[in-house]
Amino acid sequence: MATNSTHTETPTVGLNADLGESFGAWKMGMDEALLQIIDSANIACGFHAGDPLVMRNTIRTAKANNVDIGAHPSFPDLQGFGRRNMVMAPDELEAAIIYQIAALDGMAKAEGARVVHVKAHGALNNMAAADYALAQVVARAIHAYDPSLVLLSPALSQLSRAGKEQGLRVAEEAFADRAYEEDGSLVSRSKPGAMIHGAEASLAHVKRMLESGGLISASGKVLSTPIHSICVHGDGPDAVNTARLLRDSLRAEGYTLKGLA
Amino acid sequence: MATNSTHTETPTVGLNADLGESFGAWKMGMDEALLQIIDSANIACGFHAGDPLVMRNTIRTAKANNVDIGAHPSFPDLQGFGRRNMVMAPDELEAAIIYQIAALDGMAKAEGARVVHVKAHGALNNMAAADYALAQVVARAIHAYDPSLVLLSPALSQLSRAGKEQGLRVAEEAFADRAYEEDGSLVSRSKPGAMIHGAEASLAHVKRMLESGGLISASGKVLSTPIHSICVHGDGPDAVNTARLLRDSLRAEGYTLKGLA
Amino acid sequence: MATNSTHTETPTVGLNADLGESFGAWKMGMDEALLQIIDSANIACGFHAGDPLVMRNTIRTAKANNVDIGAHPSFPDLQGFGRRNMVMAPDELEAAIIYQIAALDGMAKAEGARVVHVKAHGALNNMAAADYALAQVVARAIHAYDPSLVLLSPALSQLSRAGKEQGLRVAEEAFADRAYEEDGSLVSRSKPGAMIHGAEASLAHVKRMLESGGLISASGKVLSTPIHSICVHGDGPDAVNTARLLRDSLRAEGYTLKGLA
Amino acid sequence: MATNSTHTETPTVGLNADLGESFGAWKMGMDEALLQIIDSANIACGFHAGDPLVMRNTIRTAKANNVDIGAHPSFPDLQGFGRRNMVMAPDELEAAIIYQIAALDGMAKAEGARVVHVKAHGALNNMAAADYALAQVVARAIHAYDPSLVLLSPALSQLSRAGKEQGLRVAEEAFADRAYEEDGSLVSRSKPGAMIHGAEASLAHVKRMLESGGLISASGKVLSTPIHSICVHGDGPDAVNTARLLRDSLRAEGYTLKGLA
Repeated sequence: MATNSTHTETPTVGLNADLGESFGAWKMGMDEALLQIIDSANIACGFHAGDPLVMRNTIRTAKANNVDIGAHPSFPDLQGFGRRNMVMAPDELEAAIIYQIAALDGMAKAEGARVVHVKAHGALNNMAAADYALAQVVARAIHAYDPSLVLLSPALSQLSRAGKEQGLRVAEEAFADRAYEEDGSLVSRSKPGAMIHGAEASLAHVKRMLESGGLISASGKVLSTPIHSICVHGDGPDAVNTARLLRDSLRAEGYTLKGLA
Repeated sequence: MATNSTHTETPTVGLNADLGESFGAWKMGMDEALLQIIDSANIACGFHAGDPLVMRNTIRTAKANNVDIGAHPSFPDLQGFGRRNMVMAPDELEAAIIYQIAALDGMAKAEGARVVHVKAHGALNNMAAADYALAQVVARAIHAYDPSLVLLSPALSQLSRAGKEQGLRVAEEAFADRAYEEDGSLVSRSKPGAMIHGAEASLAHVKRMLESGGLISASGKVLSTPIHSICVHGDGPDAVNTARLLRDSLRAEGYTLKGLA
Repeated sequence: MATNSTHTETPTVGLNADLGESFGAWKMGMDEALLQIIDSANIACGFHAGDPLVMRNTIRTAKANNVDIGAHPSFPDLQGFGRRNMVMAPDELEAAIIYQIAALDGMAKAEGARVVHVKAHGALNNMAAADYALAQVVARAIHAYDPSLVLLSPALSQLSRAGKEQGLRVAEEAFADRAYEEDGSLVSRSKPGAMIHGAEASLAHVKRMLESGGLISASGKVLSTPIHSICVHGDGPDAVNTARLLRDSLRAEGYTLKGLA
Repeated sequence: MATNSTHTETPTVGLNADLGESFGAWKMGMDEALLQIIDSANIACGFHAGDPLVMRNTIRTAKANNVDIGAHPSFPDLQGFGRRNMVMAPDELEAAIIYQIAALDGMAKAEGARVVHVKAHGALNNMAAADYALAQVVARAIHAYDPSLVLLSPALSQLSRAGKEQGLRVAEEAFADRAYEEDGSLVSRSKPGAMIHGAEASLAHVKRMLESGGLISASGKVLSTPIHSICVHGDGPDAVNTARLLRDSLRAEGYTLKGLA
């Protein structure tokens, strides 16, 4: 797994994005372009987006670009794109997460690839970041499927904590275009300043975090944490430009960019 | 894989049933009882029945009873229970089958088990039994996921043919309670005599087939084929009794009953 | 709408049950038997249970038994049977409720019947009972579809309040087999004493409530409210017996049992 | 209903398009632009596309533009966008169609509008155009819901025939950009010449059909039929331009363009 925590070796970090979010006749995202830039792809597993053929094609393109494949499980919520908070019984949720990881990993296997990491999607990720009991369910599901998988998780979250206590390798994630509260949670999209707009501003935000060794809150406070992967968006007008600028600039700064294997 | 084709060793055959067909709040089938009798369980993968928790619990019970686990993929048709004929593009269907096998196999892996065989469900099985091009899609999907999996397929069908040509091991299946046409297809349920009613009649039907070395049509014709597994029903008043009578009687006749590994 | 609030006329009340909860191949409930007993049927609309054919058949049977038809809309959650708490955007939820009422009412129209009342299902009902803002969404949806519909709502709940403020006729409901907290909410099923077991105990509970003019908490407190309809269960071993005993005993006590039209 | 069959009055025809085909987070179509041009909107009802909120918003925009609202029911096939041939039992299909019309009509009612016509979607439309028994199911469902609804149906199809025999008003439809076989069926998209490309070519095709009083096959044969509505596409680069050119040119030619009420 990537690490940027030591000074004697080349610092490493990676870029990740949520991909494979088309469904049937509906297209979403700029997967082809992003897969030429990023290091780790979080691929939808059919519960919030993605269908088996979309999954297979996304895996093929990721593999062709040497991008690490990750499972991106969600609550079962196609209409709400996995963004609706939902309360599932722990055993149902655990099984649902195993199902999704397994489906993607088996599809990857059929393409000569494999799942390297798991990142929870949308409401599941947000809820597990704040709720330790829910986070334990996510960590338990990943561990049950394959204890060698990496959990890609919001830095400083309850999910990271649960993952570590479960014995998983945890990759701490920072967002390129989201502002943070002082407790490490994301500033709600309903508040001003929640989003960092434009490729240059995102780059500046990312560089400040990597250099300071932690998340930086909107108020300017440094929240110390390793940062193993930077999340860039897969959709929207700036997505590809931001991802490309981040990759090129970070490389120029001496960072090694890589996946989470 | 089981074989009943030689005379110098103990003849072997197995019993299989479709299980794990509950969904959410809805219960179906007598899985607990049948899993104490049968040799191979065809477990629904969430597309026509089964949800992740049902799948996990069914795998656990199968494993506890030393019953071989098989994937039972279907068209995506929960409301129609996978019984509606449907036309999917070959690449969509192939991906959908891989997805289902992978989901079940990964769930099995989380339980220290693995998928041994694959049996297509309902309309997919019936259509692939008669349509060689469709059968090739099914065989290709299984092969893409794991070429060592056994295809459990209606004896003498296009699906068996496609499986063999794909290089898969094929287990030929006969039904305990269905009458056959002279071409080896099932007598349509809409015709009189389609169903063989009662445990004793099913046993007699099965014994005649095993002894004659082939399917026996309603008209009395023997259609030569190895028979590796006998399908018993998982639901209905007679299901458990029929399965138990078949098991006990076949054992008493000297058959070794086993799964398809 | 039924009323039991005056002394100079025959007191009236009704029995309601949640029905039409089969789905595709899966059967649930004792609809045929209950529809010969109850006054108001809350019919699933396809989001937590029910499919179009189940809905149509349930409407036909209700009509044949002169049982009033009600829509029983839910969060979109087939696998969780509408029992999972879920957060939907207000405009999405409002549209989802209108959709469900409309689908059932149009199906009723095709059978020469019509929807008389609406009762929210499961988690939606429980959440709206406690959350006024959510309750307003439910009330607004009903009003948008048809302001003359009756809202069947837990007595003393935020949902009843929102319904009245929206100008809907509100029928206050009490449960035959659930104990109440002192604030009128149901005792959580996870607590001892939450359920009232057996037909006789349910009858005693119902009679005490009707006679005292309010819900009665587990602690013995009377929470004054009109009670227009008693909810009986549609499934489980006691369901039909309890419903029949309630109907016969209440009639013998002089109550007129009727729907909510 | 529109008619273009007499010479003594202004000839009338209308433009229709399939709309409301977004779903959840996925956007499709140029509904806003097309609703300023066309006369009749065939709005998805949630089975192949559309969700309740998309339906409601599409109805509002249609109403604001004085565009007639039609229901566009489909097989239940979200992943396949209703384009997969499927075999449903007649009573299941009939109920599914009533459900969809009812849901849309009730949503329209909540917006002070109503459904004027019904056009079957995708595979259901194609199959019913060729299969009289299936066409009868569609016609029966429409009639059961509201015998005054107009069936918008491929000209010269089995569906038109079944609609008329059911007593429905039938609006015969021609496609602006599809070539016809000599039996009035569409040239399969897999054949060369199936599609008519470009706004000008579509206009020429439409004008030839309207002037000759029938469909015109790729071979040049006129297949006499009234043509009440021209189907234009709702998606793709040419959609809006083609629709606008057709509207403007037909008006300039003296046609009155109107819906099917």
